[in-house]
Amino acid sequence: MTGSLVIAGLGPGDDALVTPEVTAALACATDIVGYIPYVARIPERPGLTLHPSDNRVELDRSRHALEMASAGRDVVVVSSGDPGVFAMASAVFEAVEAGPAEWRSLDIRVLPGITAMLTAAARAGAPLGHDFCAINLSDNLKPWALIEQRLRLAVQADFAMAFYNPRSKSRPEGFVRTLEVLKEACADNRPVIFARNVSRADEQISVVPLQDTHADMADMRTMVIVGSSQTRIIETGTAPIVYTPRSAS
Amino acid sequence: MTGSLVIAGLGPGDDALVTPEVTAALACATDIVGYIPYVARIPERPGLTLHPSDNRVELDRSRHALEMASAGRDVVVVSSGDPGVFAMASAVFEAVEAGPAEWRSLDIRVLPGITAMLTAAARAGAPLGHDFCAINLSDNLKPWALIEQRLRLAVQADFAMAFYNPRSKSRPEGFVRTLEVLKEACADNRPVIFARNVSRADEQISVVPLQDTHADMADMRTMVIVGSSQTRIIETGTAPIVYTPRSAS
Repeated sequence: MTGSLVIAGLGPGDDALVTPEVTAALACATDIVGYIPYVARIPERPGLTLHPSDNRVELDRSRHALEMASAGRDVVVVSSGDPGVFAMASAVFEAVEAGPAEWRSLDIRVLPGITAMLTAAARAGAPLGHDFCAINLSDNLKPWALIEQRLRLAVQADFAMAFYNPRSKSRPEGFVRTLEVLKEACADNRPVIFARNVSRADEQISVVPLQDTHADMADMRTMVIVGSSQTRIIETGTAPIVYTPRSAS
Repeated sequence: MTGSLVIAGLGPGDDALVTPEVTAALACATDIVGYIPYVARIPERPGLTLHPSDNRVELDRSRHALEMASAGRDVVVVSSGDPGVFAMASAVFEAVEAGPAEWRSLDIRVLPGITAMLTAAARAGAPLGHDFCAINLSDNLKPWALIEQRLRLAVQADFAMAFYNPRSKSRPEGFVRTLEVLKEACADNRPVIFARNVSRADEQISVVPLQDTHADMADMRTMVIVGSSQTRIIETGTAPIVYTPRSAS
């Protein structure tokens, strides 16, 4: 009996951003595993078992999915956005590496999805149109000193920057410090995009000059994009367009 | 008469990676504008005019699209991958900024797509599972010295790195130099992923230790991903899994 494990990206929230490849995989699944709000997006049907679980149990969830696939089930682990960007794919492979040898011969596939930074960027214009970096600002899994050093080097490299998980109730001080570091390291007043609940009905996009930003402009449902020194604003009379030109000198 | 301009991402090649949002926009278009091979992916139908154009004419193409939208047409500019990542969105906004004032009040929307690095990463495992950067290695639009400085800082920041446009026939020496810089700057033998024609029938994925890489492993149809110092390989007996753990110290 041969099962399979698919790690699929559901995109940022709007079903019109789910790829047909992912939709097809969901249609063949016997079991769906994932964080409660993501599993809630999957319609129930006969023959399908939903296994929602809480946040911060990514390794337990991964082992459960791997065990079911080993037992012959066709399991889909759902992530929001893209599963390979600060999401479930790395957690599953951490479990594979630490787990029994037979997990290495399982049929495991990762199906890409529209990650939040691409949708946030599209809404604002094209702030990631030149070289950029993506940083997870959560210090649950890495020390704050590493984040701060990475921020300074990213400014020095003149990357546009996309920040995932900028701020949570349990550690509000990290994003305060992030903005302090950026205000000091960037001599300019480049645009910062705050994109909350992108692609959802209550989506909110705002563009704020760096020196005017403050930490409560973001929460865990916000994607933050900071322009490079080259990023430009086109005033339109309504929402401004933020883009980074293709060329640099 | 009010036209519209949509800048849409077709993903890396497989139609199963085109979002329903993009498919719907294509179905409403009167005109499709883009580089020849991308426009060739759009089926002809009555009422639709295809405007394929050659490479390296991005600004002319953008102005043409903006003129048609101004004249009341519903224009879709197609990009491969995501239009905001080293693709057409920045070119269109460069044309808007330099163009007549009325272009600023046009209805312009960017629709995200699956960019090549996400598909390449998914095929190999999850090499972009921790902080990473994306660099366009083409020196058509920026000086080589800037690329080299950015590479060194990206290594210092310990980003995984995704390289677009690593190598062309007209400038083969840039990628030779890229690998020299990386071999020197990274003291280790981290994995490098060469992903050619991702999601197409002739897709080829190979994983090579950095110190064994050479420049002719890539061409312009190859996406190159270099792991961070933390990136791991799981041997499976068949293709290895390459992933970057979520945590770092």
